[in-house]
Amino acid sequence: MSIVLTAQCPDDVGLIAKITGLCFEHQLNITRNQEFVDKEGKRFFMRTELSDIPNDDFLPQLQTRLPIGSKIALHRGDKVKVVLLATKEAHCLGGVLLKHYEQALNIEVLAVIANYPDLATLVEGFGIPFHVVSHQGLSREEHDKKVGDLIDHYQPELIGLAKYMRILSPEFVARFNHKIINIHHSFLPAFIGARPYHQAFERGVKIIGATAHFVNDELDEGPIILQDVTQVTHAETAEDMARIGRDIEKTVFCNALALACEQKVFINGNKTVVFA
Amino acid sequence: MSIVLTAQCPDDVGLIAKITGLCFEHQLNITRNQEFVDKEGKRFFMRTELSDIPNDDFLPQLQTRLPIGSKIALHRGDKVKVVLLATKEAHCLGGVLLKHYEQALNIEVLAVIANYPDLATLVEGFGIPFHVVSHQGLSREEHDKKVGDLIDHYQPELIGLAKYMRILSPEFVARFNHKIINIHHSFLPAFIGARPYHQAFERGVKIIGATAHFVNDELDEGPIILQDVTQVTHAETAEDMARIGRDIEKTVFCNALALACEQKVFINGNKTVVFA
Amino acid sequence: MSIVLTAQCPDDVGLIAKITGLCFEHQLNITRNQEFVDKEGKRFFMRTELSDIPNDDFLPQLQTRLPIGSKIALHRGDKVKVVLLATKEAHCLGGVLLKHYEQALNIEVLAVIANYPDLATLVEGFGIPFHVVSHQGLSREEHDKKVGDLIDHYQPELIGLAKYMRILSPEFVARFNHKIINIHHSFLPAFIGARPYHQAFERGVKIIGATAHFVNDELDEGPIILQDVTQVTHAETAEDMARIGRDIEKTVFCNALALACEQKVFINGNKTVVFA
Amino acid sequence: MSIVLTAQCPDDVGLIAKITGLCFEHQLNITRNQEFVDKEGKRFFMRTELSDIPNDDFLPQLQTRLPIGSKIALHRGDKVKVVLLATKEAHCLGGVLLKHYEQALNIEVLAVIANYPDLATLVEGFGIPFHVVSHQGLSREEHDKKVGDLIDHYQPELIGLAKYMRILSPEFVARFNHKIINIHHSFLPAFIGARPYHQAFERGVKIIGATAHFVNDELDEGPIILQDVTQVTHAETAEDMARIGRDIEKTVFCNALALACEQKVFINGNKTVVFA
Repeated sequence: MSIVLTAQCPDDVGLIAKITGLCFEHQLNITRNQEFVDKEGKRFFMRTELSDIPNDDFLPQLQTRLPIGSKIALHRGDKVKVVLLATKEAHCLGGVLLKHYEQALNIEVLAVIANYPDLATLVEGFGIPFHVVSHQGLSREEHDKKVGDLIDHYQPELIGLAKYMRILSPEFVARFNHKIINIHHSFLPAFIGARPYHQAFERGVKIIGATAHFVNDELDEGPIILQDVTQVTHAETAEDMARIGRDIEKTVFCNALALACEQKVFINGNKTVVFA
Repeated sequence: MSIVLTAQCPDDVGLIAKITGLCFEHQLNITRNQEFVDKEGKRFFMRTELSDIPNDDFLPQLQTRLPIGSKIALHRGDKVKVVLLATKEAHCLGGVLLKHYEQALNIEVLAVIANYPDLATLVEGFGIPFHVVSHQGLSREEHDKKVGDLIDHYQPELIGLAKYMRILSPEFVARFNHKIINIHHSFLPAFIGARPYHQAFERGVKIIGATAHFVNDELDEGPIILQDVTQVTHAETAEDMARIGRDIEKTVFCNALALACEQKVFINGNKTVVFA
Repeated sequence: MSIVLTAQCPDDVGLIAKITGLCFEHQLNITRNQEFVDKEGKRFFMRTELSDIPNDDFLPQLQTRLPIGSKIALHRGDKVKVVLLATKEAHCLGGVLLKHYEQALNIEVLAVIANYPDLATLVEGFGIPFHVVSHQGLSREEHDKKVGDLIDHYQPELIGLAKYMRILSPEFVARFNHKIINIHHSFLPAFIGARPYHQAFERGVKIIGATAHFVNDELDEGPIILQDVTQVTHAETAEDMARIGRDIEKTVFCNALALACEQKVFINGNKTVVFA
Repeated sequence: MSIVLTAQCPDDVGLIAKITGLCFEHQLNITRNQEFVDKEGKRFFMRTELSDIPNDDFLPQLQTRLPIGSKIALHRGDKVKVVLLATKEAHCLGGVLLKHYEQALNIEVLAVIANYPDLATLVEGFGIPFHVVSHQGLSREEHDKKVGDLIDHYQPELIGLAKYMRILSPEFVARFNHKIINIHHSFLPAFIGARPYHQAFERGVKIIGATAHFVNDELDEGPIILQDVTQVTHAETAEDMARIGRDIEKTVFCNALALACEQKVFINGNKTVVFA
């Protein structure tokens, strides 16, 4: 994995020059550089792959040269620590675990937490700790608190909702703000809410899709990371669409996690900047 | 173009056997056969390509063997007569006219009617009659009446709305019921209504699309024929999305007309059956 | 899974009528029917989904009504028995095993046979028998004989080569004629042979792909079942392309097996007919 | 259209810093920056969109700061002058002319030259000069000389071969070195040479494609700019594939020209760098 410098700050003239100039002073070779300015929001985003790890002076020096309020980070190529939440469906969870096993993702899956025990065999077959935190008899807040405490035990950098069929309390969302990635089984904003494949079938669409997004307080309204679609025809029932859609969900979820774990995703208000 | 028999009727056991049996009796070779049963709606759809034109007895005999209320039709490979409506944008209209010129569609474009004169040069360059029916000073009903009368003069089998930026009166829709194909510049049902690319930009989607559909009384709610999409990123403005989207609109509109003119599209309530 | 009747025979007038007529006599409702005539090869292919299992008279009656040399088969919806062969790479094998676990394929995986032990944990985690048949110290024919005998022990209907990195002897191919499905890591016929991603990188292509095909005696020349591709750019190295390609390989291999196990694939000389 | 600075040179530490530093000194805001280093070839490529046109000192100053042999260019947003060559087929030519008419490309089409008169009406309908230079009775070199002289009369920056069905002499290729973009009707390197759709049909592929590339002395071997594909099935004849393929050819050719005319394409040996 690469050494990656990320920066975001209010836009200004000369930002690239300042950052790359400091890299040059430190004799760091830039092997890839991606930059975007949100002209409406007047905000600057940059992702820089470096040939070597900078010394300890680099980040403090960079901070002083950039505008106040700049967010900079250096990623040394370590695997990103992830906890996955699931319910009963295997496809998204299994998709990530398989790629984790293949070492195809820059991810270390610390644990899987589910509100049902169904997926224990699958997860343990991959040698990953599996915890059941049942929601039975608990309020939403109580359950989220228990799950959150267990997550905190692992100190993950990201939380992946691998078809975790629970609505999250605002407390939970705030507790892990900007850290939760969800997979929604529709091409948002079409078919927000429940049973999107049935909605798609009723409407007679010719394409179905899936959406990976960060979670915020509005249901299915968080910043979109990635979407993909596939063709369907009149011959597919709602159940067929759900079955076909699971492949898209799996792919989109895996690829969104991959992007996030390669430091390619920036949150920009209710949108994302994705340096693919 | 092929000789095509189409049939739709309430579902029953033995329908394929009855239709193909009669073909066999008439020594008609079936070169392609596509069939679909809507199990919910209990409705049968079939499209059959034949090697020869049946004699005059064939259709009446078929009608007597099928359930009451069956709709059957025989298409002898003649080009389908089409009138196109447009406003000021050239891409969908030009896309069809170019393919018409290439003889890549089973279509005869009889005329283009627009509510502005801007596209005259383009249309006349292709040697197609061009009429301006301005809506200035007319009520919606009056304008639709004038346009409808002009359409009737040409007796088309299909009417293509090539970015015709007018809301149609219920009278106009009823007058040309099941004959009007529209191209909508979003992946319906996402972004129904005005300025879909601006809506898409605001939401931060990663995919935009276009939808060809039959027109009914509900805005953007008619039976969908075809949809397609393309990837966009954070770097695209709403204007970029509109520009990129025009290519998808053009493709989807051309391809939907192609399907309809090859007798591959059946209306089934608020959906379509499309034998691609 | 559906009850499926498949038929292929020399083309003739009235074949659909004969088959669907007999279905009607047996009061079998046809819920889906797909038919294709190869006009060059004068060959007829049909796949028919039935609402009920026909009685024992049906197949013999059908055989007498169809031309000599017709191949007909009735599939009662049982899962198709498959043995998978692998070497060291996990992605295609794991992809199928995961879908098998999800019950997303009409498949029963009987066993996995590999020439290296590396994948034991993965396979056993899914509860599937895993056998190592090392090729060390054996001629190609000897090794293929040992593998073939082990396969015969399981009596599979299909053999999937999930990145089995061995060239097969003609004896092995003949022994399991028309039963072996391979995944090739290029968009055939581009980049036949070894190291296709390096070839693709050297040529500077903008799209890479994968191909699932039946195996015959010519390397990478058997009937193609399914292909898919993805975009790449100048920024990808050959190793990046290999990594990206693995996702396509996995998808194409899984989907080709799915098609074959739903009786949707017919071999037609060196091509296939695929009723998707 | 944007103001674009392009640079390519041998790779070195600090190149981005030097270029963006000079932009900063000139108070030029960088609105988009794309950079790539070919590590094998040790070559640096950068495309920079600027908010303003630099003054006359800028380019000479930049040249002195960059390594010897650097190629830098400044594009002030003027339309790129293009001459199109064609034979008899309308789709690629018409596709570009339609987009030119829509002002959807950063292109000024100066003229169309064809070796047959068939496309005169189409081209003149768009108000573009059309010249026939027949190859009848001329050697390849004589014909290419006449066409080349006519091209030189227009002084285009790019030459688009819109299905120009002539093999070019080495003299012609050298005369317009790195300026000629061709559209090939296959997914190269599959099906190099004549009748690719017939080759594709014979092989039974499930995907066909098209490739836009710069022309060099090796037939179909020049640097690839863009490729795209579409699915086909057993039901398509070679003629069907050719018809379907024409849509892909049109799209790929238009999009490759669009990329080149937005200064997004760099030639790198026998490959391209494309900043999409």
